[in-house]
Amino acid sequence: MEKPANGVRLVKAPEHFISQELIADINANGLDETRRGFLRKGFFSALGGAAAGLAAPMAFAAGEGDPAILEKQEWQTTLGKNVATMPYGVPSIYEANLIRRESPGLTRVSAASVAFTPLQGLFGTITPNGLHFERHHQGWYNLNPETHRLMINGLVKNARVFTMNDLMRLPSVSRTHFIECGANTGLEWGNVAVPTVQYTHGMLSCCEFTGVPLKVLLQECGADLKKGKFLLAEGGDGSGMTRTINLEACLEDTIVAWGMNGEMLRPENGFPLRLVVPGVQGVSWVKWLRRLEVGDMPWNTKDEAVHYIELMPDGMHRQYASIQECKSVITTPSGGQQLLDKGFYNVSGMAWSGRGKIKRVDVSFDGGNNWRTARLETPVLTKSITRFNIDWVWDGSPAILQSRAIDDTGYIQPSIKMLRDVRGNRSIYHNNAIQSWKLDSNGEVSNVQVG
Amino acid sequence: MEKPANGVRLVKAPEHFISQELIADINANGLDETRRGFLRKGFFSALGGAAAGLAAPMAFAAGEGDPAILEKQEWQTTLGKNVATMPYGVPSIYEANLIRRESPGLTRVSAASVAFTPLQGLFGTITPNGLHFERHHQGWYNLNPETHRLMINGLVKNARVFTMNDLMRLPSVSRTHFIECGANTGLEWGNVAVPTVQYTHGMLSCCEFTGVPLKVLLQECGADLKKGKFLLAEGGDGSGMTRTINLEACLEDTIVAWGMNGEMLRPENGFPLRLVVPGVQGVSWVKWLRRLEVGDMPWNTKDEAVHYIELMPDGMHRQYASIQECKSVITTPSGGQQLLDKGFYNVSGMAWSGRGKIKRVDVSFDGGNNWRTARLETPVLTKSITRFNIDWVWDGSPAILQSRAIDDTGYIQPSIKMLRDVRGNRSIYHNNAIQSWKLDSNGEVSNVQVG
Repeated sequence: MEKPANGVRLVKAPEHFISQELIADINANGLDETRRGFLRKGFFSALGGAAAGLAAPMAFAAGEGDPAILEKQEWQTTLGKNVATMPYGVPSIYEANLIRRESPGLTRVSAASVAFTPLQGLFGTITPNGLHFERHHQGWYNLNPETHRLMINGLVKNARVFTMNDLMRLPSVSRTHFIECGANTGLEWGNVAVPTVQYTHGMLSCCEFTGVPLKVLLQECGADLKKGKFLLAEGGDGSGMTRTINLEACLEDTIVAWGMNGEMLRPENGFPLRLVVPGVQGVSWVKWLRRLEVGDMPWNTKDEAVHYIELMPDGMHRQYASIQECKSVITTPSGGQQLLDKGFYNVSGMAWSGRGKIKRVDVSFDGGNNWRTARLETPVLTKSITRFNIDWVWDGSPAILQSRAIDDTGYIQPSIKMLRDVRGNRSIYHNNAIQSWKLDSNGEVSNVQVG
Repeated sequence: MEKPANGVRLVKAPEHFISQELIADINANGLDETRRGFLRKGFFSALGGAAAGLAAPMAFAAGEGDPAILEKQEWQTTLGKNVATMPYGVPSIYEANLIRRESPGLTRVSAASVAFTPLQGLFGTITPNGLHFERHHQGWYNLNPETHRLMINGLVKNARVFTMNDLMRLPSVSRTHFIECGANTGLEWGNVAVPTVQYTHGMLSCCEFTGVPLKVLLQECGADLKKGKFLLAEGGDGSGMTRTINLEACLEDTIVAWGMNGEMLRPENGFPLRLVVPGVQGVSWVKWLRRLEVGDMPWNTKDEAVHYIELMPDGMHRQYASIQECKSVITTPSGGQQLLDKGFYNVSGMAWSGRGKIKRVDVSFDGGNNWRTARLETPVLTKSITRFNIDWVWDGSPAILQSRAIDDTGYIQPSIKMLRDVRGNRSIYHNNAIQSWKLDSNGEVSNVQVG
C-alpha cells in the first residue's frame, strides 16, 4: 500500500473515546435516535464524560501522566525561527507526503499526463494552489505576462488584442468554482479500482477565481451574439489546445481569469490567463489562453472530435457531453487509509454539480441499504465544492461506505451499474457514479465496486 | 520607492482603451448616468467599439501587427515541463516580488516581529497560505503533530488531554473568516504614513478554517458554562502566549482548528493547532494551541494586561477591546503603485467587520466630498473579507481615493480624525479609520491622511 499521504490523519489512531454505554445505546437505538437523546441531555458531555475513565492512553485526566503535555517541549524553551524565514511559505515538513502524484503506470510521457490532487488529506472546499491537479497536453511553461496577449476575433465588430494590463483594468469578479477533468474517475469504468481517492477522484480542485466576465469582453468587441452561438478557445501551449464553448450555455458565468485563490494563476494552471467555464469539464478551461473566436457552429477540433469523446455500447461516439454531473465522494476515510480502532468518527467528503448547487448528501455504511443525511458546510455555492460531514460510530464490523449527492435540479448521483447500463464500459469520461469504500474488520479501507 | 510588488499589475500601463466620447459623456453626465445609458445601448461594446481605432498600441485590429500575438512563441513550438515537476507547486517566477515582508525599521528582533501580507497584489477574498501574515512573539517552530497535545482543564467535570488524532475524529466545521492583528494600521495613529498597503493593512488575511467547534470540546469535557464565562488559551511557543477569551461573546463561533485553506495550518500560523476566534483580533487566535482553561474571570495575562492595550488621551488604558470593528481599504490602486495613463480602471479593495457582514462599501475619488457605492462580490460572509469593485475613469487630475465600509449593525467606518478625537494618538491598536490614497497627476499613488 502507498505510504499514507498525511502523517496526522493516518498515524496509529488512539483509543476510541466514546463510552461503551454510548455505543450500546447507538447499537440499540440507532445513531439518530441516540443523538436526539444526547442533544436533550448533552451529546458531547455524554461522549466525553463517560469516556474519561475508559480510554487511556487517549483521555487522561489532567496530571495523570502524558509527558507530551506535562513536560516542557523544546519549542517552549528556545527562540524560534524569524518571521519571513519563508517570504513565500510552504507546508510543515510533517506534511511532506501530501503532494500531487502521477498515477503509477497511467502514462509514460509526463509532459502529457496528470498529477492528481491528494483529496484524502484535504479539508473544507478550497484546494491549496500548490496541490491543484495538473493535466497538460504538451507540458507547462513559465509564460511571460508582459508579452502574453489575448486576441478576440471572429463574429465581432472589432477584433481586438489585449495585454494583461488591459484585461486587469476591466471590471472583475471573484467566484469560487470546482474544476474537474472529464476523465476524472475514468479508470473505474473498466473496473480498474485504483487504490486511493487521490487517483479515483483527484482530477478535481476548487478555487476562488478572479477575472473579467467573458460577456464583458465579448460586448467590448461588439460580438454578434445572435449568429455567434459558439466560442473557440485556444491555448498558448504547444499542444494546439482548442475547444468549442457553447455560448448559450456558458456565456453568463464564464470568466477570463488571472486570479486563483487570491494570487495569480500558477504556471501549471495557465499563468497568466485561463478560461473558467463553471460546471464544464476541465479541458474547456483553456490554459495560457491566447485567442477567443466567436463563430456560428462548433469547430470539431481534435480535442473534441477525437479526444474527450465517449464510446457508447452501440459503437457511436458521444461528443460535447461537457457538463460535469452531480457527484460526491467520501474522502475521510478512503482507500489506503486505516482505522485502527472502533469508535466515533467524523466521516467527511465532497459533493459538487456542474448544474448548480448541492441540495443534499446521503451516506450509507452498509453498501446502500440504509442512508442517513449528512451535514452540509455553508455557504453552499453553485458549481462549487460542498463539504459534507456525518457522525459515525464504527463497531468493528466490515462495512461499505458510500455517499450519494442530489443537486438542486433534483438529479440523483447514480450507481456504477446504472451508468454502465446506459453507457457501457468502454468510456473513460464522465463517470459520476457513487464511490464505494470497503472497510475491513482490521480497519483497512479499499476501493470496491458495488451495485 | 519600493520595487512594485507584482510585475503584471505595475508594469507600464498601455494606452487607455475607452473612447474620448465616453470620457466626455462621463464627465458631462457622471459615470452612473453614463453607465445606465450604456447598459441600454450596450456598455462595453460602446467602450470597445469606439476605442478600437483609437488606442494603439493597445487595441489592434486582428492582424495589424503585434508580434506577441502574430508570431509563434517559444512555448508553442517546444515540449513543456512535466506534470508534478513541482509535487507541491509554487508561484510563477514572474510573481517573485509578491512576498511577505518585514516593515523596514519596525523591529530588530525578527523572532518577535511581523511579516506583512502583500495585499496590493492579491485578488478576491482568500489569502494564499504562503502569503498569510505572520506575527510571532518568540519565533515559530515545526511542532511534531504526533506528540502535540491539547489539554482542557479548569471549570470542567473531566479535564482531558487530546492528541491530534482525537481532535480530528470529532465533528468538524469549515468556515471562512478574516484574521487581523489588533495593531494593523497601527503606525497611522502617529502619522507615520508607511508607503504601501502591505504595511498599512497587511496584518490581515482571510482563510477557510477547518476544525472542531470549541463548544463541542467544552461540552465533551463537561465545562461549567454557568460559572465559566472565560477561557484561557495557551500557546505552545516559548513566549508563554496566553489570552483570555470571553466565552459569552465567542463560544458560538470559535473553532479549534487544524485546517487552513484545505490543508493543514502552516508552521508559522500555528501548525498543528490554533484557535480561530472570528471577529476578534489575531493575538487571541492562539497558535500551537496546547491548553484551554475554563474560568470565572479574566486572567490579566501579560499579553492582555501590559501588551495589546490602548493608551487613551486621559492616561487610562483601554483593555480587552478585542473586536475588530468595520474597516475597508482600496488595494488597487494603492500606495507605491503608479497609473501611467488616463482612462478606465477597475478600482478594487477589501472590507470586513468583526461584528458581522459587510452591508455596503462607498468609494470617494475626491477625498470624501462625493461617494459612490461599490459592487460587492458574493457571497458576503460574516466576519470574513468582502471584495468590492467599482468602475472609475481617471481624467488625469490629482485625486484622493477612499473607501468607507458599513456593516450589518449599521456601524460606519470612521475617519482618522473622528478616531483621534476619541482615542488620542498614542495608541497603536484598533485603527479602523478610512484610508486615503493620493493620486498625483503623474499617476503616482501615495499614503496621505485626510479628514
